[in-house]
Amino acid sequence: MALVFPCSPQIHAVLLVCLALLSFADGRKLLVVPMDGSHWFSMREVTDELWHKGHEIVVVAPEINLHIKAGENYVMKEYPVPFTKAELEGHVQAFVQVVFEERPFLERFVKIYERLKNTSNLFLATCSHLLYNKELIRYLEETKFDAVFMDPMVPCGQIIAEYLSIPSVFFLRGIPCGLDYQAIQCPNPPSYVPRIFTTNTDHMTFPQRVKNLLFSLLDLILCDFAYAPYTKLASEFLQRDITVTELLSHGSVWLMRTEFAIDYPKPLMPNIVTIGGINCAHKELSQEFEAMVNASGEHGFVVFSLGSMVSEIPMKNAKEIAEAFGTIPQTVFWRYTGETPPNLAKNTKLVKWLPQNDLLAHPKARAFITHGGSHGIYEGICNAVPMVLMPLFGDQMDNAKRIESRGAGVTLNIIEMTSKDLSDALNAVINEKSYKENINRLSALHLDRPIHPLDLAVHWVEFVMRHKGAPHLRPAAHDLNWIQYHSLDVIAFLLAVVLVTMFISLKCCLFCYRKCFYKKERVTKSSKSKTQ
Amino acid sequence: MALVFPCSPQIHAVLLVCLALLSFADGRKLLVVPMDGSHWFSMREVTDELWHKGHEIVVVAPEINLHIKAGENYVMKEYPVPFTKAELEGHVQAFVQVVFEERPFLERFVKIYERLKNTSNLFLATCSHLLYNKELIRYLEETKFDAVFMDPMVPCGQIIAEYLSIPSVFFLRGIPCGLDYQAIQCPNPPSYVPRIFTTNTDHMTFPQRVKNLLFSLLDLILCDFAYAPYTKLASEFLQRDITVTELLSHGSVWLMRTEFAIDYPKPLMPNIVTIGGINCAHKELSQEFEAMVNASGEHGFVVFSLGSMVSEIPMKNAKEIAEAFGTIPQTVFWRYTGETPPNLAKNTKLVKWLPQNDLLAHPKARAFITHGGSHGIYEGICNAVPMVLMPLFGDQMDNAKRIESRGAGVTLNIIEMTSKDLSDALNAVINEKSYKENINRLSALHLDRPIHPLDLAVHWVEFVMRHKGAPHLRPAAHDLNWIQYHSLDVIAFLLAVVLVTMFISLKCCLFCYRKCFYKKERVTKSSKSKTQ
Repeated sequence: MALVFPCSPQIHAVLLVCLALLSFADGRKLLVVPMDGSHWFSMREVTDELWHKGHEIVVVAPEINLHIKAGENYVMKEYPVPFTKAELEGHVQAFVQVVFEERPFLERFVKIYERLKNTSNLFLATCSHLLYNKELIRYLEETKFDAVFMDPMVPCGQIIAEYLSIPSVFFLRGIPCGLDYQAIQCPNPPSYVPRIFTTNTDHMTFPQRVKNLLFSLLDLILCDFAYAPYTKLASEFLQRDITVTELLSHGSVWLMRTEFAIDYPKPLMPNIVTIGGINCAHKELSQEFEAMVNASGEHGFVVFSLGSMVSEIPMKNAKEIAEAFGTIPQTVFWRYTGETPPNLAKNTKLVKWLPQNDLLAHPKARAFITHGGSHGIYEGICNAVPMVLMPLFGDQMDNAKRIESRGAGVTLNIIEMTSKDLSDALNAVINEKSYKENINRLSALHLDRPIHPLDLAVHWVEFVMRHKGAPHLRPAAHDLNWIQYHSLDVIAFLLAVVLVTMFISLKCCLFCYRKCFYKKERVTKSSKSKTQ
Repeated sequence: MALVFPCSPQIHAVLLVCLALLSFADGRKLLVVPMDGSHWFSMREVTDELWHKGHEIVVVAPEINLHIKAGENYVMKEYPVPFTKAELEGHVQAFVQVVFEERPFLERFVKIYERLKNTSNLFLATCSHLLYNKELIRYLEETKFDAVFMDPMVPCGQIIAEYLSIPSVFFLRGIPCGLDYQAIQCPNPPSYVPRIFTTNTDHMTFPQRVKNLLFSLLDLILCDFAYAPYTKLASEFLQRDITVTELLSHGSVWLMRTEFAIDYPKPLMPNIVTIGGINCAHKELSQEFEAMVNASGEHGFVVFSLGSMVSEIPMKNAKEIAEAFGTIPQTVFWRYTGETPPNLAKNTKLVKWLPQNDLLAHPKARAFITHGGSHGIYEGICNAVPMVLMPLFGDQMDNAKRIESRGAGVTLNIIEMTSKDLSDALNAVINEKSYKENINRLSALHLDRPIHPLDLAVHWVEFVMRHKGAPHLRPAAHDLNWIQYHSLDVIAFLLAVVLVTMFISLKCCLFCYRKCFYKKERVTKSSKSKTQ
C-alpha cells in the first residue's frame, strides 16, 4: 500500500515530501487527536496511508506521552501537560505492579480501581490542558481542517470537533462501559451480546445471562461515573450543556477494530465500519531475527510478548515461565527487559523489542504467548498461529475468551499458573492438531474479505472529509427520547384506545341488557300485579 | 468488470467458453433459483460475473416465465408448470388493469388483494412443481452444488438448499411483511424504521408512529398468512416441521439491494451486505438512440418508463400524459406498446423498449419519469437525474417517498393526476435548481463507495461457496426464544430476588420491632403492675 522507492532514505524522504506537496492540490486537512498507548499504533497506519494519498495531517499530542512520537508523515503539534515523563512512566509501572500483586479479590479490585482512577485523571488533565491552550486552539481554528480523526475513548477530540464545527471519524476497539453503542443508538441485546469483563461468550446459560444483564446495568453507572468529568469539561469549554453521549453521537463514522471471525455477531449500524485486522501488514525480518529464526530448526519457534506496556514482570513469575520454556524443543523469543531469570534455558532468547507480527508471519512460528490485547490476537489470527493467552487487564480477558471458545488457544492466569501449566498449554497448542486446524479456519475466514481494512478505513476518513460528514448514515433514533424509541407512548395510546373501546362496549351492553331486563321486569311485575 | 475481447462475437464466445472451461479447475458449482420478474435482471448481473470468474452456473426456472431466458453464461434447467404463457401474461395484464381502474378504496383494495392472491398461487404451484419434479431433483442431488443463490421472496430455493444440505446466499430488495428482518434476527424498531406501504419517512409524527406500529403488527399476520402454504409445502417435502422463518434463518448471507443515500439508516446484522445500486453499470447508446438523443438539442430529453410489467396504460391516462409532454421543450422517450394517443406531440417518441440506464447516463437527460421500482430509482440516483414518480403498487410508493423526502423528485398519482399536474412536476424537476442539486448530492454520496456493489455481491457468493457457508456471521439470537431474547426471564428473576429480599428484610425489621416493642410492653406492663 505504501509507496516504495529504490533509493537512499534521504532521496526517499525528499521524494515523498515532493509527492505530498504536489498532491496537496487535491489533498485535504486532517486533524488527528490520538489516545496515548498501543491504540495509536494502528491509527498511525491509517494516517500514514492518508498522507501518502496527499492529505495534510496534523497530530495534536501532549509533550509527555508514551508512544506518540514526531513522524515524517505528519506535522506534530505538542502542548504542555502538568506531569513529567518519570511521573507518567511511574503510573504505568505502578499499574503493572498492582496487576501482578497477589492479594485477596476485593483488595486487588480496589487497588486496580485506584490506579485506573489515577490514569483517568491523567487523561482528563491532558485534555483540559489541550482545550485551554489558547495558542494551539487558535492555530486549530485558523487551519480550517476538513475533519478530526480520533479515538473516542477519551472524548477530547470530539470536544474540539464540536468547537471547530467540523465532522469527525472515530477509530476504536470499543468503549468498555458500552458508551459507544449508546452514542451510536445501536441495539445491543444483553441476552446474546456478551458484556466486557464478564468473559461470557454469545451462548450463555441462565446464570451467565443474569450476570450479563447486571453488568449492562452496572455499565450505565460506570459510564456516568467515568465520563462525568468530561461532561463538565465539555459543557464549560463549549459554553452549553452537553453530555459525552451526545458529543459522541455526532461522530460521522465509527471505524471499529472488530470482525466476526473473532468477535461474536451482533447488530451494527450503517455508520459502523468494521476494520478488525487492520494491523496485520507485515514486512521481512531483519537479518538478526532471520538468523535466529533459521537457527530454530525443524521445531520452529514461539513468540512471547505481554504488549507494549508490560516488558518486565516479577522474578517469581519470570522463573516459572523460564522453567516452562526449558521443557519445549522450540526456540522462544521473549520480549523482556527485566533481570534475567537464573533458570533461563538455552532455547529462550530475551529481547528488548521484537517484530511481533513479522515473526508470527514466519512459517516456523509454532505458538504465540500473548496478553490478549486486541492488536495481538488479530496478529495471531492473521498469521494462523495458535495462542497461549495470559490476560492481564481491560478487554484482554474477553479477547482471550473469544480465542479459547473457538478452540484456537488456551488461557492461563499468569499470576497463579505453574511452569507445568504453561508447559502443558504450549505442548497442547503446538502438538494437538485441533488448535492449528481451528486457527487456520479462523484465519481463512478473517482474511477472505472484499477489501483490506486499511483501505476501508482510509476510504471512510476521505469520505467524511469530502462530504463534510455523513449525515445520511445518522439514524433518526437520535431524535427520539427513550419512551419514543421503544414506542411506549404508542403502546400506551393503543392500550388506552382498546380499554376505552372495551369500556364503552361493556357500558353499551350493560345499558342494553338493563333496558331489556328492566322492560321484562316491568312486564313481569305488572303482569304479577294484574294476577294479584 | 466483464472481460472485453477485440474480436468478432463468435470468437469472443469461443474464447469465453475456453476461459470458463480452463478456470473451472478452480471454479465451483452454483445453483440459481431466481424469482420471475424484474428481480432477475440485477441477479443475472451477479451470475454473469460469477461465470466470468470461472464458476459453473445452473439456473432452475419454470418453462413458462416472463423474463428468465436461456443465456450463454449459464446452464438452464427448465421444469413444466401447470399454466400456459397466455395464462401467465393474462395474470399480469389483469393485475395492471386493476391498478389503473378507478374504484372506491375498499373495492380497489379487495380487487388488488384478489389479484395478488392469484399471483401468489401461481408462484406456489410453480414451487410445488419444482420440488416434486423427481428427475430434476435427482439431477440437483447428483450435481453436488457448492451453494444456492436465490431470491427469498419465494422461499423455494431455500427448501432445495435445505434438502441438499448446502448453504445459500439471498439476493433481495426486501420481503414486504418484514419476514427478512425476523429471519435475520435483526432489530427493526417501528419508532424510526418506516414499514412498507405506510409511506412514512424515518422522522414520524405521533400519528405516523401509531400507523407504523399498527402496520408492524399487521405484518405479523400478513407474513403468517402469505407464507403458511410454503410452511406446509416445506414440511411435507422435507418430512419435518419447519416454518418459513426458520427456513430463511439458515441463509448464510443476505445481499440486500438497499443503500443509505436512498434508504433510511436502520440496524443491520453482520450477514447483511448492502448492494444497492448494483444495477447501474451502463454502456454506450445504440446508433438509433444516439441520433435521437443528439436531435433533442439544448433542452435535452426526458425518459419515461413504468417498468418491465407496464408498457400499456388506459387511453384516458395516456392522453393526459401525452398532453403534458406537449407543453415541455424537451424530447420525451416513452416506453409504450399501447395504441398511440391522438394528442401525441411531436417531441414525444414512443418506443417499445428503451435502454433506460444508458439513456439516463447521457448528459442530456433532464428528468426521469418512473413508477419508482427499486431498479429505476437507483438508476436515477446513479446518473443524478431528478425524477417524477408515478408509483403503482408494492414498494413503489415507499421508494417514491424516499426520493421525494430528499427533495430529488415529485410524486404524482397516475390515476388522478391531470396533464397540468404532470407538466408542472416536469417543469419543477427540470428547471428548479434544488431538485438537480439534491439529486447530485445523493448521487455523489451513493457513488462514493470503497468497492462496487457488484464486486461485493460476487465476493460474498464466492465466500459462501469457498467456506461452505458463513456460520461465524450467524448471531446466537437464533438459539433464544422470544422471552430469552428480550431477557424477560432474567428481569423476572431479578425482580423476584429484589421482592423476596425486600420481603425478608421487612419481616426481619418487623420481627426486631416486635421483639423490642414486646419487651418494652412487657417492661411497661410489669412496671405498671408493680406500681398498681
